[in-house]
Amino acid sequence: MAVVAVSGGLDSCVAAAVAAQESELALLHAGYGQRTAVRERRAFEEIAEAFGVPPARRLLADLGYLGRIGGSSLTDLTVPVPEGGAADGSIPNTYVPFRNTHLLSVAVSWAEVIRARRVYIGAVEEDSSGYPDCREAYFEAFRAVVRAGTRPGTELEICTPLIRMSKAEIVAKGVELGAPLGLTWSCYRREDLACGTCDSCRLRLRGFRQAGVADPIPYASPGGQAG
Amino acid sequence: MAVVAVSGGLDSCVAAAVAAQESELALLHAGYGQRTAVRERRAFEEIAEAFGVPPARRLLADLGYLGRIGGSSLTDLTVPVPEGGAADGSIPNTYVPFRNTHLLSVAVSWAEVIRARRVYIGAVEEDSSGYPDCREAYFEAFRAVVRAGTRPGTELEICTPLIRMSKAEIVAKGVELGAPLGLTWSCYRREDLACGTCDSCRLRLRGFRQAGVADPIPYASPGGQAG
Repeated sequence: MAVVAVSGGLDSCVAAAVAAQESELALLHAGYGQRTAVRERRAFEEIAEAFGVPPARRLLADLGYLGRIGGSSLTDLTVPVPEGGAADGSIPNTYVPFRNTHLLSVAVSWAEVIRARRVYIGAVEEDSSGYPDCREAYFEAFRAVVRAGTRPGTELEICTPLIRMSKAEIVAKGVELGAPLGLTWSCYRREDLACGTCDSCRLRLRGFRQAGVADPIPYASPGGQAG
Repeated sequence: MAVVAVSGGLDSCVAAAVAAQESELALLHAGYGQRTAVRERRAFEEIAEAFGVPPARRLLADLGYLGRIGGSSLTDLTVPVPEGGAADGSIPNTYVPFRNTHLLSVAVSWAEVIRARRVYIGAVEEDSSGYPDCREAYFEAFRAVVRAGTRPGTELEICTPLIRMSKAEIVAKGVELGAPLGLTWSCYRREDLACGTCDSCRLRLRGFRQAGVADPIPYASPGGQAG
């Protein structure tokens, strides 16, 4: 059994498809008061259906305190979501402080109780957001916490199969494995149609374009589909 | 500014008193569907008042998903809380899988946003519960996660001032610093009077007895007060 953190986005959907090659799936979704929480939750449920994961092996975790803590344009509606990316290598304001540690903690607690052997997360280091908690060094450090902080008998592997992939490689891997990419949602801003211009949409569109695959989801902006 | 995780128990109250010697306090309390959640929340609010921490510097985090994940007698009401301790060095069933990582994650996210420089947690390695996530090696590993997983400019110290203390030393330190020990709640089972017989009550009572200090809270069991 593998616990997979599934946000509803492209990367986590492909991570679930990779995990499904070798394990039964248990899918975890976390809401944290982000702008597009309702749409992401719908994407999660549809992806879980597509992978045939029954409700008893889905866990919804409400990390609503992250919204109250704030500090990110994803949870603080008074801070605009940027369109231009962080050109200077700084951390974008979409960074939700330390979020992946919360997500991994829920995954590890759940995995320990249901005796899963692996936790998958679709984090991407290169060609991505620039978040500090998406880097391989971060996951390596977290693995040591899992070894030190769980029961002596717990052997849990933290798997980051996409960490070194480009977005184009992720799209290609998803297509190869038959992942339900049309059910995913990546936009940071909108829930009806993807805006096509936020950093997350731009990375996604570039990935599809470079992979030579049409992005199956609908975009609001014609610039979106042009990438 | 220091973020202190305050459960409402003896150890975290003394940790807050230690933190207050050098920092302004911001107090974090987490509920997670444990048996004595209401009583612990009350202890937290009363301790916060005693330390003069205004509501804007208190954060209540609902980790209710830990209760749904289960795997502990503290959150699963069908599993009895033990009275005898885990004599063989195994992990007691009161262990909530990986709980401290959740708690520390909230503390770190909050600290990063409010620019606190320290996070305090009243974990005790010796003379304690035997939980894997209360050991110094665990906190050392977690410090590496904080360094790797936060913004480049974030410098956050994870402080465990009680980690090497005995319960008697913790009681003595609390008395020395004028910590409001009479407001704390340690019992795993009851919310009206402390049971005096669960592992947490027994450790607490032994600590007070060895420190030569009367425990100011009321106990249900006469055996409780005798320790």
